[in-house]
Amino acid sequence: GAVDKGVDFANYFCTYGFLYHQKEMLCDRVRMDAYFNAIFENKHDFEGKTVLDVGTGSGILAIWCAQAGARKVYAVEATKMAVHASQLVHANKLQDVVQVIEGSMEDITLPEKVDVIISEWMGYFLLRESMLDSVICARNRWLKPNGVMYPSHARMWMAPIRSGLVDQKMSDYEGAMDDWYSFINETKSYYGVDMSVLTRSFTEEQRKYYMQTSIWNNLHPNQIIGTPTIIMEMDCLTTTVDDIRTVRASISSSITEENARFCGFAGWFDVHFRGSSKNPAQSEIELTTAPSYDSGTHWGQQVFLLYPSLNVQQGDDLVIQFSMSRSKDNHRLMEVDLSCEIRQSSSGELLSPFRNNFLH
Amino acid sequence: GAVDKGVDFANYFCTYGFLYHQKEMLCDRVRMDAYFNAIFENKHDFEGKTVLDVGTGSGILAIWCAQAGARKVYAVEATKMAVHASQLVHANKLQDVVQVIEGSMEDITLPEKVDVIISEWMGYFLLRESMLDSVICARNRWLKPNGVMYPSHARMWMAPIRSGLVDQKMSDYEGAMDDWYSFINETKSYYGVDMSVLTRSFTEEQRKYYMQTSIWNNLHPNQIIGTPTIIMEMDCLTTTVDDIRTVRASISSSITEENARFCGFAGWFDVHFRGSSKNPAQSEIELTTAPSYDSGTHWGQQVFLLYPSLNVQQGDDLVIQFSMSRSKDNHRLMEVDLSCEIRQSSSGELLSPFRNNFLH
Ligand SMILES: Nc1ncnc2c1ncn2[C@@H]1O[C@H](CSCC[C@H](N)C(=O)O)[C@@H](O)[C@H]1O
Ligand SMILES: Nc1ncnc2c1ncn2[C@@H]1O[C@H](CSCC[C@H](N)C(=O)O)[C@@H](O)[C@H]1O
Repeated sequence: GAVDKGVDFANYFCTYGFLYHQKEMLCDRVRMDAYFNAIFENKHDFEGKTVLDVGTGSGILAIWCAQAGARKVYAVEATKMAVHASQLVHANKLQDVVQVIEGSMEDITLPEKVDVIISEWMGYFLLRESMLDSVICARNRWLKPNGVMYPSHARMWMAPIRSGLVDQKMSDYEGAMDDWYSFINETKSYYGVDMSVLTRSFTEEQRKYYMQTSIWNNLHPNQIIGTPTIIMEMDCLTTTVDDIRTVRASISSSITEENARFCGFAGWFDVHFRGSSKNPAQSEIELTTAPSYDSGTHWGQQVFLLYPSLNVQQGDDLVIQFSMSRSKDNHRLMEVDLSCEIRQSSSGELLSPFRNNFLH
Repeated sequence: GAVDKGVDFANYFCTYGFLYHQKEMLCDRVRMDAYFNAIFENKHDFEGKTVLDVGTGSGILAIWCAQAGARKVYAVEATKMAVHASQLVHANKLQDVVQVIEGSMEDITLPEKVDVIISEWMGYFLLRESMLDSVICARNRWLKPNGVMYPSHARMWMAPIRSGLVDQKMSDYEGAMDDWYSFINETKSYYGVDMSVLTRSFTEEQRKYYMQTSIWNNLHPNQIIGTPTIIMEMDCLTTTVDDIRTVRASISSSITEENARFCGFAGWFDVHFRGSSKNPAQSEIELTTAPSYDSGTHWGQQVFLLYPSLNVQQGDDLVIQFSMSRSKDNHRLMEVDLSCEIRQSSSGELLSPFRNNFLH
């Protein structure tokens, strides 16, 4: 359906209007290093070229492109952050190269087509926020036939994990339900109104909240208990909005730990800067948000818990059905449906499948 | 200006659609007891009468009115909570009396005028949420000439306080600024971009966040260091939207403590159920959200801090200018401007005034 722009601003864009939030991204060293190196180790893509930065925020990527030698950079930003981007451009004396344009990418016009589109559009588990739509729209309208996308490729990953969150969320949920039952009793005895008819809806609401919402987490690599698998790969030069509107995957993963508690899945992404086939990168750069000992990102991983957790053995095979589509109420949020069968390596037996759906 | 309904739903109504949030209000015993007693100790106002409940939420007030003998209760609710209100009405076998209507009060029509309007419309420090507008609109359209408002009167209060929040917020702010300066240095040295031009805007943003936002707090009564003063009183039968759009008051307060650290002001409200002058209540009920040892409410108090805090003596007089108006961006939030002069009782000297403005 059509998106109400006012609502989209209230729900989505508003946070990007704060320097505080831009700073969080600017302090993510893994993210910053990846874009910095992608630009400065591939200067040939920028020298004398025209660039479009979709969602420039503070203006950082546009400024780097200018510093790398771009002839002209169009830096488009929907929020009032555009004013700060423009201040920053002036303070760094790049106003002859970088032109900040305040407006939605979908609404504005550029005076020319560009050689490069750069954008940091990735949300949690890649697709949350649906900002890639705006990049695709920009690409279709403004990228020259032999133009390059920065980043050029993206992948979604998933792996089975162990996590204390499964007990924590379960006990939070149980605590909320205990509270509810005393509330029902008190409302009946003090105020003469029986509210027990609402128990089913309250249960559903609380399950959604505690058990059916994906959780941001920075996992330790040893929480991964099976082989990570790619759910989806895309070439940013060719992918369409239809390709990403729904993501479906049938994948498998083998348990790699001795005797582990299987609690659900973690999802993350990586992107690559490889240039294009006609114009490959001099130096390929990768930005990964996989669980890591020492180089976590602000994206962390998204955790999808399955209940109840259960013990698995090395060699057990998981057969996973994954599907993700946009929430009806808010196209920037996702609904994820996950189910998983376990084939035990010892007995060859197939355990009855787990299944859960999530708001992500 | 005109209110965008979609945005208003995204910003305001959405939370009321959750049972969890309704339950928080239903668990507020001070609130519940006040409405319960107001209704059941004044049954004469309800027996055989028609009632309108503006913003029925879970339906609790409408159900009580029916149990108190109302002939007909119209229970209007803008959110999907209306579905649960209707379930509750049926479960309590009151569907012949209570008619739940899902819709905005401003948009719907009733088949008749009513004898009583009941509503729990009070936000933090009374007026936040601006829901009283909807009650006034309902009153003007649907209350019979001799009808009664529940509650019938409301007051806003303010008193000088001491509070550890003043140090805490100041040190949070300083921490945020320290972070900012290392961020500026790192961005310059690692990534070659000088962001110091944004320092002024970041400072302003952080000051707004930490020092110029009213704070929810459940104060201990001994944190009040001077005489509480009424800022505004209203008769719910006659007040208009113009009366409440801006609240201005020049008030004074005397320090009542020996030697106290003056940190700012707390604001709270009370409402009364007194019936009307033609039809006074049999039993007057008060609902107060003043600081209390043992009967706090979910409203708590709103704290407005002044910087720096300073020592005051018993007998010092505070002369306070207060003004509150609606935020331009969101009519349900308030902008508060507070200034305060201190006349020292010892020297008779007038200290130069404190002043701060707040988003509330
Ligand atoms: N359709 C659109 N048009 C313009 N700006 C958009 C947009 N969708 C998202 N944005 C902006 O894109 C930014 C994404 S965050 C990345 C900011 C910056 N490029 C950096 O790397 O630090 C946000 O500031 C957001 O407001
Ligand atoms: N203009 C309007 N029309 C209909 N409902 C409204 C409204 N403004 C606010 N509301 C609803 O009013 C309720 C206020 S909270 C009070 C709920 C209930 N009367 C109780 O006392 O427990 C919310 O559920 C909110 O959604």
